[in-house]
Amino acid sequence: KSIGKIGSMHLQHTHVPYPTKERLQPRRFKAHLMGTTYVYDFPELFRQAVHTQWNYAIVNCPELKCPQDVLEAKELALDEKGQLQEVVRSAGSNTCGMVAWLLTLFTPEYPKGRKIIVIANDITYQFGTFGFVEDQFFTKATELARKLGIPRIYLSANYGARVGLANELMNNFKVSWKNENNPSEGINYLFLDAETYKQLNQNEKKSVIAEKLVENGERTIQNEGQPIILTGASALNKVLGREVYMSSLQLGGTQIMHRNGITHLTAQNDLEGITKIIQWLSYVPSARDLPVPIFENSDTWDRDIDYIPPKGLYDPRWLLAGKYEADNWISGFFDRESFLETLGAWAKTVVVGRARLGGIPMGVIAVETRTVEHIIPADPANSESQQEIIMEAGQVWYPNSAYKTAQAINDFNKGEQLPLMIFANWRGFSGGQRDMFLEILKYGSYIVDALIDYKQPVFVYIVPNGELRGGAWVVVDPTINESKMEMYADEKAKAGILEPEGIVEIKYRNAQLISTMEQLDETYKKLKKSLEDPLKTEVEKSKIEILLKAREQELLPVYSQIALQFAELHDTPGRMKAKNAIRKILEWKNARRFFYWRVRRRIHEEYMFKKLININPNFTRNQMKKYLTEWFYNDVGTEFDWEESDFKVAKWIDEMLENFSDDERNEGNNIINMKSSTNKKDLINLRIKNIKNEMITKKVVELAKIN
Amino acid sequence: KSIGKIGSMHLQHTHVPYPTKERLQPRRFKAHLMGTTYVYDFPELFRQAVHTQWNYAIVNCPELKCPQDVLEAKELALDEKGQLQEVVRSAGSNTCGMVAWLLTLFTPEYPKGRKIIVIANDITYQFGTFGFVEDQFFTKATELARKLGIPRIYLSANYGARVGLANELMNNFKVSWKNENNPSEGINYLFLDAETYKQLNQNEKKSVIAEKLVENGERTIQNEGQPIILTGASALNKVLGREVYMSSLQLGGTQIMHRNGITHLTAQNDLEGITKIIQWLSYVPSARDLPVPIFENSDTWDRDIDYIPPKGLYDPRWLLAGKYEADNWISGFFDRESFLETLGAWAKTVVVGRARLGGIPMGVIAVETRTVEHIIPADPANSESQQEIIMEAGQVWYPNSAYKTAQAINDFNKGEQLPLMIFANWRGFSGGQRDMFLEILKYGSYIVDALIDYKQPVFVYIVPNGELRGGAWVVVDPTINESKMEMYADEKAKAGILEPEGIVEIKYRNAQLISTMEQLDETYKKLKKSLEDPLKTEVEKSKIEILLKAREQELLPVYSQIALQFAELHDTPGRMKAKNAIRKILEWKNARRFFYWRVRRRIHEEYMFKKLININPNFTRNQMKKYLTEWFYNDVGTEFDWEESDFKVAKWIDEMLENFSDDERNEGNNIINMKSSTNKKDLINLRIKNIKNEMITKKVVELAKIN
Repeated sequence: KSIGKIGSMHLQHTHVPYPTKERLQPRRFKAHLMGTTYVYDFPELFRQAVHTQWNYAIVNCPELKCPQDVLEAKELALDEKGQLQEVVRSAGSNTCGMVAWLLTLFTPEYPKGRKIIVIANDITYQFGTFGFVEDQFFTKATELARKLGIPRIYLSANYGARVGLANELMNNFKVSWKNENNPSEGINYLFLDAETYKQLNQNEKKSVIAEKLVENGERTIQNEGQPIILTGASALNKVLGREVYMSSLQLGGTQIMHRNGITHLTAQNDLEGITKIIQWLSYVPSARDLPVPIFENSDTWDRDIDYIPPKGLYDPRWLLAGKYEADNWISGFFDRESFLETLGAWAKTVVVGRARLGGIPMGVIAVETRTVEHIIPADPANSESQQEIIMEAGQVWYPNSAYKTAQAINDFNKGEQLPLMIFANWRGFSGGQRDMFLEILKYGSYIVDALIDYKQPVFVYIVPNGELRGGAWVVVDPTINESKMEMYADEKAKAGILEPEGIVEIKYRNAQLISTMEQLDETYKKLKKSLEDPLKTEVEKSKIEILLKAREQELLPVYSQIALQFAELHDTPGRMKAKNAIRKILEWKNARRFFYWRVRRRIHEEYMFKKLININPNFTRNQMKKYLTEWFYNDVGTEFDWEESDFKVAKWIDEMLENFSDDERNEGNNIINMKSSTNKKDLINLRIKNIKNEMITKKVVELAKIN
Repeated sequence: KSIGKIGSMHLQHTHVPYPTKERLQPRRFKAHLMGTTYVYDFPELFRQAVHTQWNYAIVNCPELKCPQDVLEAKELALDEKGQLQEVVRSAGSNTCGMVAWLLTLFTPEYPKGRKIIVIANDITYQFGTFGFVEDQFFTKATELARKLGIPRIYLSANYGARVGLANELMNNFKVSWKNENNPSEGINYLFLDAETYKQLNQNEKKSVIAEKLVENGERTIQNEGQPIILTGASALNKVLGREVYMSSLQLGGTQIMHRNGITHLTAQNDLEGITKIIQWLSYVPSARDLPVPIFENSDTWDRDIDYIPPKGLYDPRWLLAGKYEADNWISGFFDRESFLETLGAWAKTVVVGRARLGGIPMGVIAVETRTVEHIIPADPANSESQQEIIMEAGQVWYPNSAYKTAQAINDFNKGEQLPLMIFANWRGFSGGQRDMFLEILKYGSYIVDALIDYKQPVFVYIVPNGELRGGAWVVVDPTINESKMEMYADEKAKAGILEPEGIVEIKYRNAQLISTMEQLDETYKKLKKSLEDPLKTEVEKSKIEILLKAREQELLPVYSQIALQFAELHDTPGRMKAKNAIRKILEWKNARRFFYWRVRRRIHEEYMFKKLININPNFTRNQMKKYLTEWFYNDVGTEFDWEESDFKVAKWIDEMLENFSDDERNEGNNIINMKSSTNKKDLINLRIKNIKNEMITKKVVELAKIN
């Protein structure tokens, strides 16, 4: 019997030997030699990573308690019919070069467990290559993840597709010689004799490596020191006929793949990589179409934002995450230490990542204000090429940063289903020849495409001392996706198609300046009037003309200033609000408070819409809104305005959601599956039932018409 | 009364003056000055372009007759409620900077008329800028095109968004001076007096320029000499602080925009541009989801293909379109003179365009075999940059050509709904450092994405003396979209993951060579055996060893040859067929005959599937196939194999389709709307009715269950 925690030998005979891992040591060693963890050791890394996640969480909320075991692993394997089954077998019993598990992780966000599928290459199996069996296994495991709507993690460590010759023939073919007696004269052809030919019945299906390419690469974490490549360095050197590449890392190391946006995050080793996977998952719903995991922590929603973006240059990460200033913590918009930047080495004029707002995970896009260096490496294969350093100004979209913006939006939307916060501060797109050649227009429209497609609420906030102009405004304007997007401006933000200097140059030229002068300056007005006096002689008139000119010259500088100020007055949040271009003017200090409830209310609202659309896919948003507002006024009272009462609406839906089963909110399967507890629950049940009935009646009527 | 053709003064009073166009001359002149046609002259250009199209068609088929009038134009305008209406008004009566027409074109493919929406900028209106009204008009006209499912042409000639200051305030604001008596000392602020303030009630909605960006730029034909730009040269020079750009053409002329794939085609002038639009439209169905316009011409399907792709280098256009050889016409795969290449200046290692096969329009992708120059222009804004010339090898996908391939597939699929022919001949993707940095992997997966999404039949044909290897195979493999894609190989094509030289290096090294030698060479075998003889002395044995080595040295070259040949034998279409990687092995000479019926049958089949899916969106392909085959065996007889009898199946569906109303096939609105004529028609009507009834019964049963 075990003393304390139950040990691995619990209730076993005393003569049972301790299991030795000896058997696996050679493979483990082989894997390590190739720079990777042995495949069956990965679940343990996941366990450690979840523990690390708990440790972080407990620092913030000491009342949390880490469960005894934070991971449950069930290995998956194909049965004789090619169907995926859970198997219990000892490590290393795999019969193909891929291994997969259904892992249940007990994380701080999901203490009751969340499931993921992990697929990994066994690099010790057939030299880490994959063929038909591996492909099939990969596909099946992926299909399972898709069916369950849960994340699929692929731990890639392989040497590509398995190639081979027909081994069954290799020892059996015959040769027709040019000269039977002197083979070195050459051959005519190869052939099989009749008997061997008869044995040729097998007809194996070809390898389906296509699937891989489709599924992979959505989000990549790359180990430093491990390349992502198409063709190895030595094979390429052979093609090129000279020793161009020293190592495959030159081709697909992190200095290439992280800088061009293929790799989202890098890691020093497998444990760090897995830890980053777990951290990333903490922002993501446990399964498709479930609400995001709201994980409240010690950083309350109800606080000022300390860090105020200044007029000049600053690091946009400070605005998001806060910073230390001489040992003082200056808080940012999001929860402390919740910001995880991705794609950090690529297109640095835009900063993207994930963060929490009062515990709500969000996708984040912010704008660099400083000029950054964009380094294009020299191409070893072209001896004339040089490393190019291109300076990219802050607040401007370049082809690369526009692409990065679009890709980040797609990442947040697809699979992760996060609400999105865009801290806008753009002067426009860069339209130089280089940018035009690099298809800046195409990438700009990718941003629009990504936003059109966005299924969760999107908030665009023009930051204090930030601005939004011309082409940049066009691609983040809420009319792109009206039901999901909202735009806000800080009271200290500016926005307009052109900058004031530009517009004055076009629309407030000398003629207009003088007309303004004539209207405001009494002296000038009088002189002008006296010019029209029919009693004045030509000489007097020319004297007045001189005086007029002098007055003009004296006053023009100050009138230019007036014009500029007039143009600047068009540039205010007030005018944006008046023109209905923004929903509200906000004060930065309080923006966290506002958005916490706004975001919460909006994601709740969308979740309710999803429930209703499940009942009737033909519901319009307006119809669904009508249902919700009706219920809201019924339950909460008509003194609250539906549009404006974020706190009330959020709380009201909160209560309703509590009546749905825990499973649904935490692990989730059936969306319309409810648990009985309160009156509220009966009410929502009744309401949904009513809508269903309405719908059925309508359908029957329709069908009757058709017949 | 008119004599002959009814004239414009028909039945009018004799004193009615002839209409003078004088009134429009100033605007026409203004437009010409800006390098464009006056907006109201465009319908005439369309008329001329359609005439040109008829002239071409009549050269091929002299029995065709061009109708009297080939164009009907109805101008569209917004009424007072902001709804689009057809209007009859004289040219130049437009009240905003955009004009639109619903044009009916009577083309050779659609002699009964096809409709398109044309939207054009009036560059003479408010300096060719656009604001809210223009945006709204553009959106409405676009929505109409979308509703009718017909092509929308946008003739773009404008100076971008209209910017302005609040004119109503410009003459009314007051200034608070620092020193009322000496204005030149400066100002405190601007203000409005109470009375002016009261007048401020208007609250106009902001401009929705977003729509533009979304909708535009799918397919671009650019006039030489007219730039596509974001910011003009002079404005950019101002930003850069020096005279970098001489002209906006440097930024967005065809030498930039055609070379980077933004511009699909270029034209010397507006007439040529419109002619190309009409030509392009000739490949495209008149409305969404209608069959492609099959326009048979004098080039019969029933002929050999003269041009045979050789082993060495050649222009892939010859294979598609044929060529002259010393005054002899050597025909290609497609109908003579039917190939229209697009995106020709971009990524030249891939050739894309549209062509006809026995009258059936298809999207085409072919592979350049020659090495081409990829020129990256120097950036005028960076004095250190130089023009770069990169040599790109044929038969290899680079980031740009992979992107082009994916974009062409998307273009063919979306809007044009064409069947697709891919003449495959790829050795793989280029995986050098430069390509890796330029995200070759991403673009490769774009091809897969585009094919997954393809809604029409796709045919991949590995051409004679062509090959398909490794990564390239993966992205065009039919398993990507099994219900739409089919792969064929020419009897002279080769395919495999690695090229034979590569695979021999890995899998047929010295040890295996010697083992083959031991098996095939009697001399060697005997020597080896005698080595094992226990009676031999050590001295004898070492003599034998020497003999063995000598024999090895003598024979190794020829055995390397044997190994290579063995590997090459894996590389044959026969093995591809045996492995089920291709559907059939074809002979190039007869490929046109085969594909004509195959393509025709496949598009017919898909069209029937569309009809069935309209009845019940939940039908699987197998269910629908079951219906079709059942009917086929019923009508045609069970002696024909459904899969193999392309000619029979095509003819059979042909007959059925003839029973659908002409409107549907030619102009098309309601898909399930049929015209009565024959017994066949009653039969298909009855069958569809039966399916509908089945479905309704099922639904009622389902509903009963829910309730």
